[in-house]
Amino acid sequence: MRTMQCPLPHNNDRSTISLAHGSGGKQTDELIRDLFFPAFRNSWLEQAHDGAIISLPDSRIAYSTDSFVVDPIFFPGGNIGDLAVNGTVNDLSCCGARPLFLSAGFIIEEGFPIADLNRIVETMAEAARKAEVQIVTGDTKVVERGKCDKIYINTSGIGVVMNGIDIAPNRAQAGDAVIVSGPIGEHGIAILSKRENLGFESNIVSDTAPLNRLVSNLLASIPDVHVLRDPTRGGLSSTLNEIASASHVHIEIDESRLPISAPVTAACDLLGLDPLYVANEGILLIFLPQEKAEEAIHLLHRLTFGGQAAVIGHVTDAPETSVTLRTILGNTRVIDRMQGEQLPRIC
Amino acid sequence: MRTMQCPLPHNNDRSTISLAHGSGGKQTDELIRDLFFPAFRNSWLEQAHDGAIISLPDSRIAYSTDSFVVDPIFFPGGNIGDLAVNGTVNDLSCCGARPLFLSAGFIIEEGFPIADLNRIVETMAEAARKAEVQIVTGDTKVVERGKCDKIYINTSGIGVVMNGIDIAPNRAQAGDAVIVSGPIGEHGIAILSKRENLGFESNIVSDTAPLNRLVSNLLASIPDVHVLRDPTRGGLSSTLNEIASASHVHIEIDESRLPISAPVTAACDLLGLDPLYVANEGILLIFLPQEKAEEAIHLLHRLTFGGQAAVIGHVTDAPETSVTLRTILGNTRVIDRMQGEQLPRIC
Repeated sequence: MRTMQCPLPHNNDRSTISLAHGSGGKQTDELIRDLFFPAFRNSWLEQAHDGAIISLPDSRIAYSTDSFVVDPIFFPGGNIGDLAVNGTVNDLSCCGARPLFLSAGFIIEEGFPIADLNRIVETMAEAARKAEVQIVTGDTKVVERGKCDKIYINTSGIGVVMNGIDIAPNRAQAGDAVIVSGPIGEHGIAILSKRENLGFESNIVSDTAPLNRLVSNLLASIPDVHVLRDPTRGGLSSTLNEIASASHVHIEIDESRLPISAPVTAACDLLGLDPLYVANEGILLIFLPQEKAEEAIHLLHRLTFGGQAAVIGHVTDAPETSVTLRTILGNTRVIDRMQGEQLPRIC
Repeated sequence: MRTMQCPLPHNNDRSTISLAHGSGGKQTDELIRDLFFPAFRNSWLEQAHDGAIISLPDSRIAYSTDSFVVDPIFFPGGNIGDLAVNGTVNDLSCCGARPLFLSAGFIIEEGFPIADLNRIVETMAEAARKAEVQIVTGDTKVVERGKCDKIYINTSGIGVVMNGIDIAPNRAQAGDAVIVSGPIGEHGIAILSKRENLGFESNIVSDTAPLNRLVSNLLASIPDVHVLRDPTRGGLSSTLNEIASASHVHIEIDESRLPISAPVTAACDLLGLDPLYVANEGILLIFLPQEKAEEAIHLLHRLTFGGQAAVIGHVTDAPETSVTLRTILGNTRVIDRMQGEQLPRIC
């Protein structure tokens, strides 16, 4: 047998990602040890095993995954890195879990600047610190130029479900109040503005944020929350429709109560977009018994990321499974889930 | 506020994936309910939550992730689907864990045939059944034409670490025997042959396989295994070097004992490739005390995927941290980890 041949031209530009960084050999090892380990430093990752071996404080867990393909990767208010960490932290939080451990899988285009990768990884590490989660296992693949758009990141996550908590998309019921924890549409408009050079960036930044502390504080005071969801892709309307459908209920939203900033309203008017269908990355939809709504709003207003929380509607016992909006003009219209694609690669 | 506009042309070709399938709206929902749920059917997935809520039989777990970007996506012996399931099953197995739950994240190129997606998903479901794991949570993103190469799949996985087992890459020690569970180089050559139309496919197929039963049977009889690894990207040599480096030991491999098929030897000779650097997807490297080697080989030979297991070398107390190969001609040469990239997008 011969010694190894290297049939591909070796990339000698040390400032960009080469196919060798995805080979599983020496350059992969260097990338992991020089870039990922220092950023995500923890004892699980440094096992350098095929996976992380971890002990959980409880055996009832939530488990979630999301891939991030946002374009552009750097945008007002964040980048693909904190989006990827916060996205999975929030999905776990919406299961009533305390997020603990994340995995990170990178698919990187050959030629991607290592400085940009470093910036993204640092942002992920900072987001993980803020959310008090550990990135304990990962993977890196490199594809040839033109075979992906710069970088895609998958995260998965494990959290421990808090005791006495039973949150599920099918638990909405007549009599529930519907609360949103902050203003809608910020993320989608920030991305679109940056991508299309629309110039809204000075006023509108992504709301990407970890919501686990908001959730744990809420559930500590009001364990009887029925549904939690973060309305990302497809916006508030798609998430409301999923909940109505899973719970077989009718949800009525009051347009006048929707928290929405003047810049987002202006941008949506200009672009012909309905903010109900624009993605969010840092707000929660909360369904809980009407009699707990005031206490919840009072609590949320004192918490980071909850300052503009508002009751926006309620669940009724109307026979049809649907979502309706009572408009500012006093009309009622059905809010369907999104058809087609409004803003591709928003997350 | 206006009703939703759909500024993008709607894809009316119902046989291919459109951007709308990644919107988080109606078409995403249809894809999940019509394609993913029927294939992966289980109660966790059907919670249709942001994540799966699961109860683990124990709280000491292994957690792993891998992205799959293999080109071509269909190849002799398998496709990207079983590769993605088996890859994570094997990583968990190499942690001494019983794999239980997987996540699946899909990044799909606009225009990808739904028939191909269906075939891949069916293959994943079948691979999951064979490995006795459940795919309990997932995500689908769609990117524009030309922004990925057909389909990329990330899987992550959770397994419960078996009692009394302590397997880690830094546990190799002088006196250990080194065992490989099957013939090397099959996966890499199968992929390369298909990709470059080399015509080896009739003789060489990918070895993609779930190794969890091999591992659980081995550990039930011989719990004192020190290291388990599946030598995928970078091949046997890169994995051996990682182990030598993590354990600060010297590993000596005997070329004459390496199980390798005649077609793979012939293909490697023709292509100028060293099979020690060619990827595998269905074999294990096992380090255990020399006195257990015979029992292990005897056991492996009776198990599926272990029929050609062989002792290929041993760990010595030589002072240098390295891997050497005693060649058939009686010379000794150092086997370094792979430099550069030999076969990109092999998994």
